[in-house]
Amino acid sequence: MKNLRLGILGGGQLGRMLIQAGLDFNLHVRVLDPDENAPCRYLCEEFVHGDFKDYDTVYAFGKGCEVLTIEIEHVNVEALFQLEKEGVQVYPTPASLKTIQDKGLQKEFFQQNSIPTAEYRLLKDTAALEANLDFLPAFQKLRRGGYDGNGVVRLSSASDMPKAFQGPTVLEKLVPFEREISVICARNTKGEVKAFPVVEQVMHPEHNLVDFLLAPAQIAYKLQRLAIEIATHVTTSLDIVGLLAVEMFVTQDGQILVNEVAPRPHNSGHHTMKANATSQFEQHLRAILGLPLGDTEPHCPAVLLNLLGEAGYSGQAVYEGLGETLQEPGVHLHLYGKKFTRPHRKMGHLTVLAPTIDEVKQKAERVKNILKIIA
Amino acid sequence: MKNLRLGILGGGQLGRMLIQAGLDFNLHVRVLDPDENAPCRYLCEEFVHGDFKDYDTVYAFGKGCEVLTIEIEHVNVEALFQLEKEGVQVYPTPASLKTIQDKGLQKEFFQQNSIPTAEYRLLKDTAALEANLDFLPAFQKLRRGGYDGNGVVRLSSASDMPKAFQGPTVLEKLVPFEREISVICARNTKGEVKAFPVVEQVMHPEHNLVDFLLAPAQIAYKLQRLAIEIATHVTTSLDIVGLLAVEMFVTQDGQILVNEVAPRPHNSGHHTMKANATSQFEQHLRAILGLPLGDTEPHCPAVLLNLLGEAGYSGQAVYEGLGETLQEPGVHLHLYGKKFTRPHRKMGHLTVLAPTIDEVKQKAERVKNILKIIA
Repeated sequence: MKNLRLGILGGGQLGRMLIQAGLDFNLHVRVLDPDENAPCRYLCEEFVHGDFKDYDTVYAFGKGCEVLTIEIEHVNVEALFQLEKEGVQVYPTPASLKTIQDKGLQKEFFQQNSIPTAEYRLLKDTAALEANLDFLPAFQKLRRGGYDGNGVVRLSSASDMPKAFQGPTVLEKLVPFEREISVICARNTKGEVKAFPVVEQVMHPEHNLVDFLLAPAQIAYKLQRLAIEIATHVTTSLDIVGLLAVEMFVTQDGQILVNEVAPRPHNSGHHTMKANATSQFEQHLRAILGLPLGDTEPHCPAVLLNLLGEAGYSGQAVYEGLGETLQEPGVHLHLYGKKFTRPHRKMGHLTVLAPTIDEVKQKAERVKNILKIIA
Repeated sequence: MKNLRLGILGGGQLGRMLIQAGLDFNLHVRVLDPDENAPCRYLCEEFVHGDFKDYDTVYAFGKGCEVLTIEIEHVNVEALFQLEKEGVQVYPTPASLKTIQDKGLQKEFFQQNSIPTAEYRLLKDTAALEANLDFLPAFQKLRRGGYDGNGVVRLSSASDMPKAFQGPTVLEKLVPFEREISVICARNTKGEVKAFPVVEQVMHPEHNLVDFLLAPAQIAYKLQRLAIEIATHVTTSLDIVGLLAVEMFVTQDGQILVNEVAPRPHNSGHHTMKANATSQFEQHLRAILGLPLGDTEPHCPAVLLNLLGEAGYSGQAVYEGLGETLQEPGVHLHLYGKKFTRPHRKMGHLTVLAPTIDEVKQKAERVKNILKIIA
């Protein structure tokens, strides 16, 4: 291995943390992003300012790389198919990405591969939704382009119709779940698979973003085993190379249903940078570079707190309470290099470490509301 | 805190790993280095190609920074004094750096501050050395400019005179030591001090570089306490802000003597990136940014293996045996982004983790000779 040219489609925080880990592998990194102030802007040998949804832009960018990966799944997959055909190593593979990009295809894939998931209907337009009102309460999800809770709406009854999306969507039966969990799996070019321990997500009641993450998840050992088994099955079925984050529901009757998947580093794995010997970012690189996967065992329990822009503030970001936050031992800061804040924008995260689950939760509660990101 | 402009004098691997940690703090990083291919070249907002030993270059560079630090101590300290006077926060302080840059002043400082150290003589030239042959066997050290075992020679008797340095040197009595240890302390702008656990160094028999490092050191608890006490005393006496690596000898009669110090991240702390929640690099940044220091407890025992350029090879580096090396669980790679290898050049390191000291040593022995850096 020598100075391999790695291209990353997307230059946001996931790309930034991937580059941070990639420093250890001597990679020559190229980044494509439409935002000139992208968090990766100054961290790569070559920053290409352009649209990763455009065929020609992605194709031209990819031709200059030996290995091409993504940090966001909404990229031009047709260009990736062509690049793959011409010998560029594209991970995740365009075929797996194509399935995942479309939540409708994802759902069909789950069904075809005996992957447990909530009941659903594919709707091509508003008329189709109206014909399926008997299926409510349900989540309506845009088939393409949703992120971070955008592109998802809860429809309880016909009176929610004004909130509904038009165009192609998935209508997913509301599952009375007890908790949301996630497992990040890695699979390398040789087919080796390793899973990180199960993590448990607590959603913020208002803005539908992960607010609080606990690792390892406080669920029965049997459920942990089952969650890892399911995530591994999804990963191999999709023929993933790289990471696959598998978000799942644990239902009130102790079943596990796959919610959705993302073939890239994921918010629910950020604590691995501090709490595990191998971080999800190192693991993604090992996987796509054809190296053996790293050990996924945690050193200790961890909580991940997303740092979101404070409501009511937009503009150049100011971080208040940093000193007080870091005063607590075992609390570590990760900012994403974003110059501007806006309400609920993901600006960084805190990882909280402690020797026991009780301590880590107590510590997280103590530091949770100290840091404010204002303008 | 917002996008603070941090300047680093030196763009080598220590600067690179400092930038890697610095990503988490949203720093606007500027680097000054005379090598256009320096490992930091593509990782900073501004790379200034210039000589950090030159007054005007350092002064002009420093004027554009709010905080200025170093990754190599051989920089123009007069420019730093002027910058400090003009309000730039320079850490380590120019006064402490001035003492440390000169191994003669270091020795005098140790003596004046009751810091245990080997007996020494300051020699101004070869004639002075000839007048001190009774002091042999001893190490002769250049007062200024030595690094990585360069600038140090062992003189056993008068017959070694042809090997001796000319010009100002320190002649240091050969101490029959049992092992070499090191403690890295951090002290922040508010005077808070924290030490990392003691590490034990094993030197390569030929090229006088650290070959193998074991953390925590396998010495009596009483000696560990004493080593940390001494290192803390040196750190506060020197009025350090940032890191101070304190290299020490444990003598055969159980005494600890300070060998020398470095006011920056140090090779003997690289394992902290993987084995401790807070790495030495994060700690240095916390210290100079006026943030509370992080927890220094290790997660588990660790071995650090330096990856040196294979003897007999010079040119564009090729890494052989990477896959086999990383096959071993708990082994992590850190390359320094150096394009060219040469015999014994520090090209990277491996960190080996295991639950016990015995296991970590055995694992290190297994992986030690697999990876070869050739051209």
